[in-house]
Amino acid sequence: MSETTTGAVTGDMANQYERISADLRRQIDSGELTEGDRLPAETALAEHYSVSVPTVRQGVGVLQSEGLLEKQHGRGTFVRRKPTPAVRSNLRHQWEKDRAREPESERLKTGATEHDTGLTVDDLIFDAKYEQVPASPDLAAAFKLPEGTMLLKRTYKTRHSNERAPFNISRSYLPLELVEANPDLLREELEPWPGGTQNQLFTLGIELDRIVETFRARPPMDNEAIALGLPVGVSVVILRKTSIDTTDRVVEISDVVLPGDRTEIVYTTKLDRW
Amino acid sequence: MSETTTGAVTGDMANQYERISADLRRQIDSGELTEGDRLPAETALAEHYSVSVPTVRQGVGVLQSEGLLEKQHGRGTFVRRKPTPAVRSNLRHQWEKDRAREPESERLKTGATEHDTGLTVDDLIFDAKYEQVPASPDLAAAFKLPEGTMLLKRTYKTRHSNERAPFNISRSYLPLELVEANPDLLREELEPWPGGTQNQLFTLGIELDRIVETFRARPPMDNEAIALGLPVGVSVVILRKTSIDTTDRVVEISDVVLPGDRTEIVYTTKLDRW
Repeated sequence: MSETTTGAVTGDMANQYERISADLRRQIDSGELTEGDRLPAETALAEHYSVSVPTVRQGVGVLQSEGLLEKQHGRGTFVRRKPTPAVRSNLRHQWEKDRAREPESERLKTGATEHDTGLTVDDLIFDAKYEQVPASPDLAAAFKLPEGTMLLKRTYKTRHSNERAPFNISRSYLPLELVEANPDLLREELEPWPGGTQNQLFTLGIELDRIVETFRARPPMDNEAIALGLPVGVSVVILRKTSIDTTDRVVEISDVVLPGDRTEIVYTTKLDRW
Repeated sequence: MSETTTGAVTGDMANQYERISADLRRQIDSGELTEGDRLPAETALAEHYSVSVPTVRQGVGVLQSEGLLEKQHGRGTFVRRKPTPAVRSNLRHQWEKDRAREPESERLKTGATEHDTGLTVDDLIFDAKYEQVPASPDLAAAFKLPEGTMLLKRTYKTRHSNERAPFNISRSYLPLELVEANPDLLREELEPWPGGTQNQLFTLGIELDRIVETFRARPPMDNEAIALGLPVGVSVVILRKTSIDTTDRVVEISDVVLPGDRTEIVYTTKLDRW
């Protein structure tokens, strides 16, 4: 029943460029090619791999999208410094919930970013900014609150101490009326808060029932590319995380911009047994 | 503790271009702007919204990445035909598992694509191609099988009957030795198989324990852009779905290319109660 569709991705075509990207990746991983090295010209690579120049471009494009190579206009293609990869797993949510009621000494040991990157607190530079803002139509609808309801907006840009760009740009929103019950939650100087948002909510007597996350992919806006240090050819993942408490109330919303060159998202769905 | 980082995304900057994208989106939703309409020139839009041309480009870029607008080189920016959106939720996995043991009459009624798109079987044109291929190093490692082990490769390109491009490009792999026990599973003419892969596995006595999905975002390869009908400025989500059975064995792997202009991924993580 193979109906013909336009421009099918054939196995052969995929194999050609994947062979090139796999070989270049191996050269980078092994150290044959290191940061700052320039690749041979596309025509030379095409000859070396016995393929066409467009196929070379595809192979190089794969590594560009992973942030391993960077095309510099008029200069050539260079090996980039590999940014710290972050794996974002949905297992982090239960882990954070389990920690939320631990004593502070326990909560101080590690945070969600360390959990995602495998780094230690000493490797990280935290940046948090708190503001009070009226809910936009979009956020008001997501919270099921009237437009203009005051929200506490928290902007996070945590980065590796050796890198200029943060792992992601995260904006977290909480209804102001909710958090005012604990004035400490309004103080940005208390960040990074040991145990994170789930512990902050715990101090308000709030327990989460579930977290719903929606993702889309798109090219970065110019300002996102600058803030995240993204070269041309890297996409971003736009994540909205909605935290819902045990009374079915939306208590927190985070909008996160994740750089496609260093983010892998891993979701495990456990199934009921027959 | 607000440490200065380069090129922070300021609220004001975000609001400026979001105001433009929101207004243009409203005009498209309301029908003031319809398929094929050309937008005014960027300079005219900049004047109309009292912003700079780069800000107009950002606002237009948002709708380009959503597939609502398309820039045509030298001709201008046009309103696109909105492609059918697909919401891919992890709730589909339990739904498919529950259906896997239903009688055929029940399984025939609806499939995973209808579940994701809200369309009916009559709206859809299925396209399935079966091949037997040796496992690449990557797939062999993912299956924990020797390189070259024979796999059944199934390529799916389901599309809306009114559209040329498929919803996604999906390549599913099963170890050949596993599926040969039911020769019907080697026959592509039996697609779309009522109840999908989880029912196919059920005919082999296999029950799934969990599904692990990893995804990344990147620009499309040229062949993916052609196959999925993607204009410039649209990213793709690269999803690998790994199905693990109750004996902890990897029984199926799907590699799916999802177009960023019409795909929203929704994952719900249920948390244990305190």
